[in-house]
Amino acid sequence: MKKKLSNTLILKIQCPDRVGIVAAVSEFIAQHKGWVTEANYHSDPVTGQFYMRSAIRADSLAISAEAFRLAFQSIAKAFEMTFELIDGQHKQRVVLFASKESHCLTDLLHRWSINELSCDMVAVISNHEVLADLCQFFNVPFHHIAIDPRQKKASFEAVEEQLERLSPDLIVLARYMQIFPSGLCERYSSRVINIHHSFLPSFAGAKPYHQAYDRGVKLIGATSHYVTEALDEGPIIEQDVIRVSHRHAISELARLGRDIERVVLARAVRHHLEHRVFVSGQRTIVFD
Amino acid sequence: MKKKLSNTLILKIQCPDRVGIVAAVSEFIAQHKGWVTEANYHSDPVTGQFYMRSAIRADSLAISAEAFRLAFQSIAKAFEMTFELIDGQHKQRVVLFASKESHCLTDLLHRWSINELSCDMVAVISNHEVLADLCQFFNVPFHHIAIDPRQKKASFEAVEEQLERLSPDLIVLARYMQIFPSGLCERYSSRVINIHHSFLPSFAGAKPYHQAYDRGVKLIGATSHYVTEALDEGPIIEQDVIRVSHRHAISELARLGRDIERVVLARAVRHHLEHRVFVSGQRTIVFD
Amino acid sequence: MKKKLSNTLILKIQCPDRVGIVAAVSEFIAQHKGWVTEANYHSDPVTGQFYMRSAIRADSLAISAEAFRLAFQSIAKAFEMTFELIDGQHKQRVVLFASKESHCLTDLLHRWSINELSCDMVAVISNHEVLADLCQFFNVPFHHIAIDPRQKKASFEAVEEQLERLSPDLIVLARYMQIFPSGLCERYSSRVINIHHSFLPSFAGAKPYHQAYDRGVKLIGATSHYVTEALDEGPIIEQDVIRVSHRHAISELARLGRDIERVVLARAVRHHLEHRVFVSGQRTIVFD
Amino acid sequence: MKKKLSNTLILKIQCPDRVGIVAAVSEFIAQHKGWVTEANYHSDPVTGQFYMRSAIRADSLAISAEAFRLAFQSIAKAFEMTFELIDGQHKQRVVLFASKESHCLTDLLHRWSINELSCDMVAVISNHEVLADLCQFFNVPFHHIAIDPRQKKASFEAVEEQLERLSPDLIVLARYMQIFPSGLCERYSSRVINIHHSFLPSFAGAKPYHQAYDRGVKLIGATSHYVTEALDEGPIIEQDVIRVSHRHAISELARLGRDIERVVLARAVRHHLEHRVFVSGQRTIVFD
Repeated sequence: MKKKLSNTLILKIQCPDRVGIVAAVSEFIAQHKGWVTEANYHSDPVTGQFYMRSAIRADSLAISAEAFRLAFQSIAKAFEMTFELIDGQHKQRVVLFASKESHCLTDLLHRWSINELSCDMVAVISNHEVLADLCQFFNVPFHHIAIDPRQKKASFEAVEEQLERLSPDLIVLARYMQIFPSGLCERYSSRVINIHHSFLPSFAGAKPYHQAYDRGVKLIGATSHYVTEALDEGPIIEQDVIRVSHRHAISELARLGRDIERVVLARAVRHHLEHRVFVSGQRTIVFD
Repeated sequence: MKKKLSNTLILKIQCPDRVGIVAAVSEFIAQHKGWVTEANYHSDPVTGQFYMRSAIRADSLAISAEAFRLAFQSIAKAFEMTFELIDGQHKQRVVLFASKESHCLTDLLHRWSINELSCDMVAVISNHEVLADLCQFFNVPFHHIAIDPRQKKASFEAVEEQLERLSPDLIVLARYMQIFPSGLCERYSSRVINIHHSFLPSFAGAKPYHQAYDRGVKLIGATSHYVTEALDEGPIIEQDVIRVSHRHAISELARLGRDIERVVLARAVRHHLEHRVFVSGQRTIVFD
Repeated sequence: MKKKLSNTLILKIQCPDRVGIVAAVSEFIAQHKGWVTEANYHSDPVTGQFYMRSAIRADSLAISAEAFRLAFQSIAKAFEMTFELIDGQHKQRVVLFASKESHCLTDLLHRWSINELSCDMVAVISNHEVLADLCQFFNVPFHHIAIDPRQKKASFEAVEEQLERLSPDLIVLARYMQIFPSGLCERYSSRVINIHHSFLPSFAGAKPYHQAYDRGVKLIGATSHYVTEALDEGPIIEQDVIRVSHRHAISELARLGRDIERVVLARAVRHHLEHRVFVSGQRTIVFD
Repeated sequence: MKKKLSNTLILKIQCPDRVGIVAAVSEFIAQHKGWVTEANYHSDPVTGQFYMRSAIRADSLAISAEAFRLAFQSIAKAFEMTFELIDGQHKQRVVLFASKESHCLTDLLHRWSINELSCDMVAVISNHEVLADLCQFFNVPFHHIAIDPRQKKASFEAVEEQLERLSPDLIVLARYMQIFPSGLCERYSSRVINIHHSFLPSFAGAKPYHQAYDRGVKLIGATSHYVTEALDEGPIIEQDVIRVSHRHAISELARLGRDIERVVLARAVRHHLEHRVFVSGQRTIVFD
């Protein structure tokens, strides 16, 4: 059973695969009386990397998180691990970006309001003002930062400054409709999630529903992925599709697609917030 | 309810859209006492073309099919229609192409054997001999025509000659793994159905499961389409997908994919055999 | 292509099946220059009833809707039809019922706000006050009518009175969590849509997610149906499911189920508002 | 990555949940140089039971399987475990039961023939003779044991005797259409898999497609489950559904359902053969 993140410590580990990793880690946890409520491993046959996520009941541990981290260093060194021990009670700071379309933003804010997403929604940044009222209703600060198409660089400097002030753990592009500059992609690497309204790699780029209509596909999809410099080519976190037919005009593909965009983005954000995602090159390991 | 094709006449019509088409056609059918058991229309907003398929109980008609065709000419002319009146009892001649993999071939032959597909399976042509026994079990003639990679042109002349003898109404490439030469594509235009083991247009070309693995997609798919000269770009008839994850090696994507390939190909073949498909440029209208 | 309802007249017909219905109706429409943008038929083999829905461009008709209705009477009589000619521009009055859970209500109000649902949201009625702010945000009047468990009859008289004042065309129980009294079921027959959080007929009644967990099903679902006196047995309009596993606790079934409830209810409401649903005993015909 | 079962030892464990299980087991495996290629745990919050499955590369172990079993006894005792160490190379003996319908039997035999299912197909038992040729084609012995409806007890004694001779590890009812007697259910408890052609618990019992049609559901399904004395109430292993509509007659529900029955049964058989299933009361844990 996936337990609540509160009162839980998440141990994320990555290292070259070899015999004894799980034994060493499990032994360490057990020695400190840790009660593991969920554990997942994956050994990637292509890269030879091993990935592990364990959820440990914080109140079961005989030592503090800080002492755990310190003591774990020796295992990490022995196995050439990178690791994180994350306090599941710590709420990540999330900044949402939106434009004019409300469906993804409403969905994320609503899920957050009913505690489906455990995080601090610290702000919404938009290049338009139409969604300000929605943010006000959900009590999330709204920042309008216009993007001047002739002065994109300057516009995004304002975005960058605002982000510096907000200090987000995660950025979600909830149908932002602007290409995130490469500087920001690097600065927040593996911490910017986008929703693309197609089943990538099909129909990358602009107007995917038009492309889907012209190609005559029988299913349309949506893809959430980490944003990288290479447009629409970042590691995919989640995808889904819905059936369409010749009867659906482009406007109807867009309507049907909205239902898929919403859930695909929400699942990806949830996976990230629960520390379930590892990035391995252009691929992801998602322990869902 | 979709009635059985036996005892049914299928009227397929295509013409520029305008007022009064359905009225004229329905009036004509009713005047000859035709009982319509299924009817579908579609007006394509992009091309301005109108498509119509009606299934008429043959025994309800006061005139013969031949007389119907003759009398219908005046309506066809008035509306600039192309039309077909097809005897649903007429079994189409189907030639299957296969290579070494048995899953699609077994599936199609089995469906045919239990009358899920109403047609004459006149032959299987393969560039390998491994599936000969399977064809024998189902009592379908098997022709081994090797494709010499250094002499493709000559090899396919043998295929072409065999096809001339077999005179197929429909050709199905059930994982044939050979590129159908453009001459045959033209000769049997909109009568050659292929199954491609990806969700096209993603991963066109060779080794789609490898491509899917490398890209890290979360769903894999299959696509059945009419074969055209432009490889993997023919009009799509049917598609479907199945969920995968980081845990699946390429061999497992292939295994999971086989289940999708089978049903997607079988549905496309069925739609074609029931005269439910219209081709409109690179798109299809499928009255399912 | 499904055209917008505005500027459209919807003709809904039901009658015993026989030869010539489509011809007579199409001829009538064509004679008055009606441009049919969408047409669907169904002949039910069990009941022998014929169902038909046509969408006609209002501006193409040479006569008024009123004149159409009048003139159509002779055809209706000849074929023993019941029929409706509905002005697609007429916005139906919708009253939503909710309790404490916000997901279905937020979803419906949001879809309405972006014109996915074409109707007048005239009021939300709730037995609790928690969703009042949400309704205010969307500018929909909110009526709190408490349901006293010891005085249900009296409580629902207040509901009934409010409904009389509101005069709804459609009532939607968006997770209302109260059994609608049989008097109201009758009064608004085939005009009250409920969402049940299971794949009916499985797990009818209370606590379906608990029932699903106990039974160990591998998929959970949601069902939207017209409300009848027999609890959870009304005609089903739409259903869908989502995959679950042993890893999901009941609370997680509920979370995953909310995503299905939302879309299933929204699709049913949309189908009803677009006059796409016919009720035939305990079954529905949905021309989607 | 799910590795091939060959060269693999599967360790299945069940015990009351407590701290240190994974550590003790992992430590034991590592101490004997075991390379774990796949590991799954589940802690059931309702029963308090812990379930674990590990796949270990046999050639990595410093001791024999027999020595492993012996040495592991002390851990098993300490944690009150029941455990199995299974040689993945050992092919289980599978007996298939069928009646007249060929789709599930063909599917299972075909998958076995292309090594999708790793087992010995030791026999097919049928109450009819129509599928004898199919079994001969796949080189699987066919036993015709008629079931006399007036003498079911005697008929099933013949079945029981045949099963004694065949000594199966797994029995699969591939649309057998006979109620398995309770004696056999007990004798082969958790080793008899059935496919029921509905989304259980909906439409248990006879003629589920008729029931589904009458109820007007919008999806039909199939369920594979372990057979128990209580008909159609055994622990569910796998389920799936397919969309249907008012247009589908009962015969078409049956046709569409066959595609679901096949894959649902095949997945369940595969899960069982790979030792991925634990039974917990009426529920299953499937480590897929």
